[in-house]
Amino acid sequence: MSKTQPARGMRDFLPADVRRREYVIGVIREVYERYGFEPLETPAVENIETLLGKYGEEGNQLIFKILKRGEHERTGEADLALRYDLTVPLARVVAEQGERLPKFFKRYQIQPVWRADRPARGRFREFYQCDVDAIGSRSMIIEAELCAAASDALTQLGFSNFIVNINHRHFLTSLLDSVAISSEQHANALTALDKLDKIGTEGVKKEFASRGLPESACIDILDFFSRVAQYAVDVFDLGINKTHHPTAEDIRSWNNFTLKEMEKFVGENAQGKQAIKELDEILKLVAVSEAAGKVALAPSLARGLSYYTGAIMEINVPDLAGSLGGGGRYDNLVGMFSGRDIPACGFSLGLERIIVVMTEREMFPADLVKASADVLVTIWDESSAGDALALARELRAGGLRVDVYPDGGDKVGKQFKYASTRGVPFVAVAGPDERARGEVSLKDMRSGEQQTLQSGAAATTLREKLGLRK
Amino acid sequence: MSKTQPARGMRDFLPADVRRREYVIGVIREVYERYGFEPLETPAVENIETLLGKYGEEGNQLIFKILKRGEHERTGEADLALRYDLTVPLARVVAEQGERLPKFFKRYQIQPVWRADRPARGRFREFYQCDVDAIGSRSMIIEAELCAAASDALTQLGFSNFIVNINHRHFLTSLLDSVAISSEQHANALTALDKLDKIGTEGVKKEFASRGLPESACIDILDFFSRVAQYAVDVFDLGINKTHHPTAEDIRSWNNFTLKEMEKFVGENAQGKQAIKELDEILKLVAVSEAAGKVALAPSLARGLSYYTGAIMEINVPDLAGSLGGGGRYDNLVGMFSGRDIPACGFSLGLERIIVVMTEREMFPADLVKASADVLVTIWDESSAGDALALARELRAGGLRVDVYPDGGDKVGKQFKYASTRGVPFVAVAGPDERARGEVSLKDMRSGEQQTLQSGAAATTLREKLGLRK
Repeated sequence: MSKTQPARGMRDFLPADVRRREYVIGVIREVYERYGFEPLETPAVENIETLLGKYGEEGNQLIFKILKRGEHERTGEADLALRYDLTVPLARVVAEQGERLPKFFKRYQIQPVWRADRPARGRFREFYQCDVDAIGSRSMIIEAELCAAASDALTQLGFSNFIVNINHRHFLTSLLDSVAISSEQHANALTALDKLDKIGTEGVKKEFASRGLPESACIDILDFFSRVAQYAVDVFDLGINKTHHPTAEDIRSWNNFTLKEMEKFVGENAQGKQAIKELDEILKLVAVSEAAGKVALAPSLARGLSYYTGAIMEINVPDLAGSLGGGGRYDNLVGMFSGRDIPACGFSLGLERIIVVMTEREMFPADLVKASADVLVTIWDESSAGDALALARELRAGGLRVDVYPDGGDKVGKQFKYASTRGVPFVAVAGPDERARGEVSLKDMRSGEQQTLQSGAAATTLREKLGLRK
Repeated sequence: MSKTQPARGMRDFLPADVRRREYVIGVIREVYERYGFEPLETPAVENIETLLGKYGEEGNQLIFKILKRGEHERTGEADLALRYDLTVPLARVVAEQGERLPKFFKRYQIQPVWRADRPARGRFREFYQCDVDAIGSRSMIIEAELCAAASDALTQLGFSNFIVNINHRHFLTSLLDSVAISSEQHANALTALDKLDKIGTEGVKKEFASRGLPESACIDILDFFSRVAQYAVDVFDLGINKTHHPTAEDIRSWNNFTLKEMEKFVGENAQGKQAIKELDEILKLVAVSEAAGKVALAPSLARGLSYYTGAIMEINVPDLAGSLGGGGRYDNLVGMFSGRDIPACGFSLGLERIIVVMTEREMFPADLVKASADVLVTIWDESSAGDALALARELRAGGLRVDVYPDGGDKVGKQFKYASTRGVPFVAVAGPDERARGEVSLKDMRSGEQQTLQSGAAATTLREKLGLRK
């Protein structure tokens, strides 16, 4: 007898789970379509060289690798791998399709990815990403539209207290330049700073030390971060232990203050000034979008992936340690495949975390998890199975979801009980008397009410009782 | 620079492809729901021992195997594998969930599977299956409902000239018994007979010889098959080179004749008699279902997979060599996981082949592949990007799909041309004059007609012009 659990870190989705997932995916897809994004799908499996070297050393370790087939299997070599994110496959498709794609290619992609990570609460080895990306423009309109689309999707799902944190890779670069960290050490320093939320200032100091980075630089940077953070604590009581959710006005005031502090810190550094100019432009644009009052400067936000080259974003809610999604500009990734630089910017919502929060907060519509059917057709006896199927056909043609009780040997009482256990709201009986008169009996399982009508009228009556539109 | 093609035998789906696929999946899902089936999803990745040994020796070879991670990677061992079909994962889930599932568990599952097969026309290494299965009943109502559901789905998609061929594993067993093939040789003989359509009678004779099966047995069986087939040729001009599509009346007449021949052939063999009784019962039940006139006895149908134990079905259309789908009863598979015998029967439609035929026959609705947006909002100049985003927000709130031209530096003429190339039916312009008056200009790209209206009225006007319901 084989094991019956799904593979480690993976999940089976029973009907109620699937309906919840499809609801969330449906809302996100509908919003993305309203922003002019079109659907793309890529294979779960990629050539291994497409993925290796795109996600940093840690990423490489987490890629699921597929053995060569046939006689090569014994070599233990892998030539294929499971999709690790949706961004690298997009870059590959853009390079492959070239001129066949529109000048501005705006696509969404909602598919699973696989990472051999250690499973934890809300962290799985198979999980869905909901990505939107716009290829072909360097305009900050793109960043603003992406923030708006992601905010709009979350708002449609019922979220209100989320923040889109935003920073810029070039601001971070100039920040590190200002404290005299050499560019070879930038990636190292960013990795350490990226952990600030998790390990605190003392932890970051230790990370700096262990990576051979100057302590003075660390102190300068952390001073800056804490000076900015203090403003939120002083002015609207929002600190590390967020005691209330900031209003749109709080965020505006925070952004004004923070932008000035960032300007002061980078001084005349050209890259830093350009980064701040772009952030300022994005903030002005989002102010008239669905993301209005939601986008907050976050000068310590670093985001792990190495391919970002401009603005970076991350969405947070107070009751979840990780983020609900994130993204940014990555102007060089497509060039790794096509040889020509093509600007790109994207945003990814994490389906699993959205579902975790929505489940805990009971945000799903009450009528989402339907019974398996609108009506159960019973079998009077084994010889009348054909009558039951004919009735089921008629009801289905009327647009109803119809289950037929399969075992004609079971008593009708048992069949009624089954309908009740399964939450099916109506039961239809066509016994010998009813059949002789071309009639059917309907029982409303909620009220207990029973009525007999011409079988031709049953579908319409049921639709009315169920409040279904034809 | 990395390769940009998808992995061998796999495909990228561009927006128009995705919309076609989603259309077909949507129709199939909606039909399956009307038959009382509920959605299930399982992981793409299974523990390798879940899959090995379930698909026969040939199947084992085609399973994509995933390398162990971390320090075990060097061993070249595989501990996981990609899903090979949707039936074995279902059996695993049924065993795992046990009593938490309803007594009759009716699920549909529409997900990709992976097979390391040699790619060919219509044969891919990643492809979708659309499965319906009913667990927990031995009643022939199940077989009839599955035939009806699959037929209904194909009919909704616009297919009319398909046939659901049906046979019974126990009829084949009794057939082989009658010609004195030992039960150890049954699998061998069935594999040979399964190829009849592809390699013809001479080919099957050679297969029998090479497998050490008696020639006389082969001749008896092939005689029976050709005697039955001859009836179709004689009575309604339907032979191996099907010259016309049989009518419901043709099929009824064929079934009556064939059933009698099958009875004669098996004589008093108890297993054979029971199989024929079940087939007869299924035929009577489908006669009142959506599959009426579509289900035809096919005494030579064997189907490859070893797990079938009762009726087996396969759907064919004249213009496709392979089948559009198939299925059957497999009462022992769940027991391989749970240790208790649980009856099961299922049907799988092959999405890729359905799409191949629908594309070749141009069966897709004309309005399926929409433009990426209903309206393109232009950018008058770089300083007015905010006005464009505000207008886009208003139009989106009105339910429209809105694209914003991102590059404010481009001339408006170029932006109009972009809309035209992309097939976007309307362009909205809010230039300085319009903005001063709170107006917007709309251009209908199909008629060339232009009108200026209050920006608040634009969404309603566009919806009317596009014929969209609010």
